Amino acid sequence: MGKEQHTTEHEFRLASRAGHPADTVVEIGAGKDRVRIGGGHFGLIAGPCSVESEEQIVRIAKAVKAAGATLLRGGAFKPRTSPYDFQGLGTDALYMLVKAREATGLPIVTELMSEKELPLFLDLVDVIQIGSRNMQNYALLKAVSRVHKPVLLKRGYSSTVKEWLLSAEYLLSGGNDQVILCERGVRGFDSGTRNVLDLAAIPLVKELSHLPVIVDPSHGTGRASLVAPMSLAAAASGADGLMIEVHVDPACSVSDAAQTITPDCLADISTHIKALKNTL
Amino acid sequence: MGKEQHTTEHEFRLASRAGHPADTVVEIGAGKDRVRIGGGHFGLIAGPCSVESEEQIVRIAKAVKAAGATLLRGGAFKPRTSPYDFQGLGTDALYMLVKAREATGLPIVTELMSEKELPLFLDLVDVIQIGSRNMQNYALLKAVSRVHKPVLLKRGYSSTVKEWLLSAEYLLSGGNDQVILCERGVRGFDSGTRNVLDLAAIPLVKELSHLPVIVDPSHGTGRASLVAPMSLAAAASGADGLMIEVHVDPACSVSDAAQTITPDCLADISTHIKALKNTL
Amino acid sequence: MGKEQHTTEHEFRLASRAGHPADTVVEIGAGKDRVRIGGGHFGLIAGPCSVESEEQIVRIAKAVKAAGATLLRGGAFKPRTSPYDFQGLGTDALYMLVKAREATGLPIVTELMSEKELPLFLDLVDVIQIGSRNMQNYALLKAVSRVHKPVLLKRGYSSTVKEWLLSAEYLLSGGNDQVILCERGVRGFDSGTRNVLDLAAIPLVKELSHLPVIVDPSHGTGRASLVAPMSLAAAASGADGLMIEVHVDPACSVSDAAQTITPDCLADISTHIKALKNTL
Amino acid sequence: MGKEQHTTEHEFRLASRAGHPADTVVEIGAGKDRVRIGGGHFGLIAGPCSVESEEQIVRIAKAVKAAGATLLRGGAFKPRTSPYDFQGLGTDALYMLVKAREATGLPIVTELMSEKELPLFLDLVDVIQIGSRNMQNYALLKAVSRVHKPVLLKRGYSSTVKEWLLSAEYLLSGGNDQVILCERGVRGFDSGTRNVLDLAAIPLVKELSHLPVIVDPSHGTGRASLVAPMSLAAAASGADGLMIEVHVDPACSVSDAAQTITPDCLADISTHIKALKNTL
Repeated sequence: MGKEQHTTEHEFRLASRAGHPADTVVEIGAGKDRVRIGGGHFGLIAGPCSVESEEQIVRIAKAVKAAGATLLRGGAFKPRTSPYDFQGLGTDALYMLVKAREATGLPIVTELMSEKELPLFLDLVDVIQIGSRNMQNYALLKAVSRVHKPVLLKRGYSSTVKEWLLSAEYLLSGGNDQVILCERGVRGFDSGTRNVLDLAAIPLVKELSHLPVIVDPSHGTGRASLVAPMSLAAAASGADGLMIEVHVDPACSVSDAAQTITPDCLADISTHIKALKNTL
Repeated sequence: MGKEQHTTEHEFRLASRAGHPADTVVEIGAGKDRVRIGGGHFGLIAGPCSVESEEQIVRIAKAVKAAGATLLRGGAFKPRTSPYDFQGLGTDALYMLVKAREATGLPIVTELMSEKELPLFLDLVDVIQIGSRNMQNYALLKAVSRVHKPVLLKRGYSSTVKEWLLSAEYLLSGGNDQVILCERGVRGFDSGTRNVLDLAAIPLVKELSHLPVIVDPSHGTGRASLVAPMSLAAAASGADGLMIEVHVDPACSVSDAAQTITPDCLADISTHIKALKNTL
Repeated sequence: MGKEQHTTEHEFRLASRAGHPADTVVEIGAGKDRVRIGGGHFGLIAGPCSVESEEQIVRIAKAVKAAGATLLRGGAFKPRTSPYDFQGLGTDALYMLVKAREATGLPIVTELMSEKELPLFLDLVDVIQIGSRNMQNYALLKAVSRVHKPVLLKRGYSSTVKEWLLSAEYLLSGGNDQVILCERGVRGFDSGTRNVLDLAAIPLVKELSHLPVIVDPSHGTGRASLVAPMSLAAAASGADGLMIEVHVDPACSVSDAAQTITPDCLADISTHIKALKNTL
Repeated sequence: MGKEQHTTEHEFRLASRAGHPADTVVEIGAGKDRVRIGGGHFGLIAGPCSVESEEQIVRIAKAVKAAGATLLRGGAFKPRTSPYDFQGLGTDALYMLVKAREATGLPIVTELMSEKELPLFLDLVDVIQIGSRNMQNYALLKAVSRVHKPVLLKRGYSSTVKEWLLSAEYLLSGGNDQVILCERGVRGFDSGTRNVLDLAAIPLVKELSHLPVIVDPSHGTGRASLVAPMSLAAAASGADGLMIEVHVDPACSVSDAAQTITPDCLADISTHIKALKNTL
């Protein structure tokens, strides 16, 4: 009965590992600052929920780089449940992210909410993030499928793995094959955590598809104390990277404070993951 | 932990019944073909999943009007899980819907997927539908909030009632107060039905908000045999209307055949609902 | 992958309508106080969450009878999430229920939690309730399948319709064919209601099975204000009855106060349902 | 609204880490075959879904011991969704498990479904398993709370972490403090895996409680290919052990074949976990 049953297996033929056995490696940035994710290259994306000021984002960028991050995240355009919540600094925040990249060399990842800002994103950012709420915004997927820029496609918070791969197929079939998938938790019945982080989706995606897949344990759990153990679990499950909310002063974060960790905690995660991955 | 807890109760102040005790009545169309939904006016929206041809939509429009429908639905731009599935006839379908309106006087409801088609929708359609997958597409909500045209806002398939009202708040706070809510089932664990039709959301929304709220039993159940009983149940729960997939030959529908009913079945539903509502 | 897929369709052959087209009518009690549920006979079961004293249960029994109830419910052995919560008055409560039956003629329905109390239930009660948490307690189902006493089998709060019918099949295949099913809401992601009342399960069960199926809107919604609309919706969907928590002073109920209605409200529901059912 | 909100935080006071900071270590078996779980002791429980014959269980016991298992599992009394499915060999299977213990020294873990078999379990088995469907079978929990025998309490397939700890509290408050918790996946909307393995529950339980907590990746995923990565992920998340379905010939397993791995695969998991745990 479910809609996913209307589509047959061959329909994510471009995302499927069956027709593309080798892992896709996504290349981000250029020159000496080039970073790779997939095919054995582990990406550690870190930064604040929201860009709050140039001073804040540059300071955090330096801190997360020192802690082992290989890319910088930071929200400029924020999808907020309420129209009265802080909506992000918008275009200004994009230029602040550019300053942080100049200061650290870290490529920048930030969320695109509307096709209107796409030209700006093509100029300024290194990875275009499609957020969980827009995983099935097909107009946006089609627009992004026609550009040459890596895309981080978050799983919808109640989407099946198959629906997620079919959204990736929208990107691939439009011509953009630089797609990184990101598991960020699905909605469940237990209010003890913000979402249910579905780590089994990692090895399942890697069976079904050649695309790299990373994990966001910050949104996946909603609790700072669970970020480190779930980061290690994600790495052990075979994830190609992590995306973690980090702030120099988590309690002062304008959004998502409860799930944000410090750079010191990130450094500890980074160290442990390197050791852990050597044993796999 | 859930995001909904970040926003306080007063945040859907415009959608809230607390500050607006009287039911909102949404007026659709003009002149002798004007239709109302809300405040005791029951809307019966019917038509095919997809507009397939002018002949098809005109024929179905006449049939559903004869069966008691007060508005015509029909998909022009279709959100499809797979990029290889039929995506709808697009702009051509909008003109076919206009022909059907001319033939019957039924106002037309169809889904908008991208801000780019908004001017066309303002010219041609009577109610702009925001689909379940776009309930939290805030760029689209903001665009539609600035126009003068009734909006049918479907509940996200895994959205809470509060998140749904906050999406309505995006529309109201932008200046568009002609909002009809539509429950269409939420995702559950039982594959016996396509979704779980959450009818308790109807009286709950009516407690919390002054906006009219209707029910889509076609997507809500995914099974044609369940459409009639759930239509009556929706009316008994206090719904302000129904949105039902009807085709003159359900088995030949290009999409959603399993959940589509005939005009005869619609006529039977319409008759029973009139009798039932007299007892409430 | 789901367990339900391990069992083939013929496996609920005794519960299936395919082999038993006529509706099962369950007969409860004897002589002039006999009550029927199913095959057009609508049962209205009402009473407090917990039996608190003889005075309380007799008083409520008289009030719900006057309001139109045809059976009396009341918890004696209570399944409580915490070991420190009130566990019910146990055997004493059974004798209090008997007094209430003597005072009103209403047959009594109460939950059995352990096979050890089965002989006592056979002597004292009219309908043995199997609660939601025990729907897959197969030892208990097998014990109850061997006795001659009607059984009210509540749906597990996260059980599929098929699993529910297979639990009924445990009862039927053991020899007890006096089974009434009861939908009481399934667990969902929205904390706005206690559960998601799955009314589409009513017509679905009636397609698949000949057994009567009733609805518990009290546990199904957890909110007193939603009980009346969902009772009418349940009747409109084709339910064979209702099970409603009623207390002469809801605010003073020792348990489930938030979802308990008054006898006056029950009388109003009863009147409306009679009128509504005449239109179906 | 949810029932869990009726109980206050202090109500799992015996299971809570607040009043018992040190990890509980559960001791299983006696003499030279004693095994510990918790407080740094990792338990590897392996064996078939069902005991099929003495020859089968002895052979598998030897194979899983050679592969690194420290305890043997095997179903004797099987909770099956359909009354027509294989219900297990019952008491005979318990004696076969004893033979397997004699042959290998591995303590045995098997599921108790009814209080009637409790004396037999006290005589014959080393760990009493309470299955997912019986997590809220309070009559059974109370019976097991009064004995001196370790208990493995599986999480209900739609139970919150708090409800699970409150079920453990039933055991502890009755006097049995030898409790091991087992996460085995919760029910979700995606049929791509049998359940959603909720690994974030592991560090969450360890924050809230001093009880050891292990993971069952076999039921948690339902797919043999996902068992190894999710075993490593479980260990990385801080689990105190694993419970894995292993058969010498998985395709010939009478139940759960799709999720059963070979002893060779178990040996590989065991080796990797030892290395991985050294890095934590």
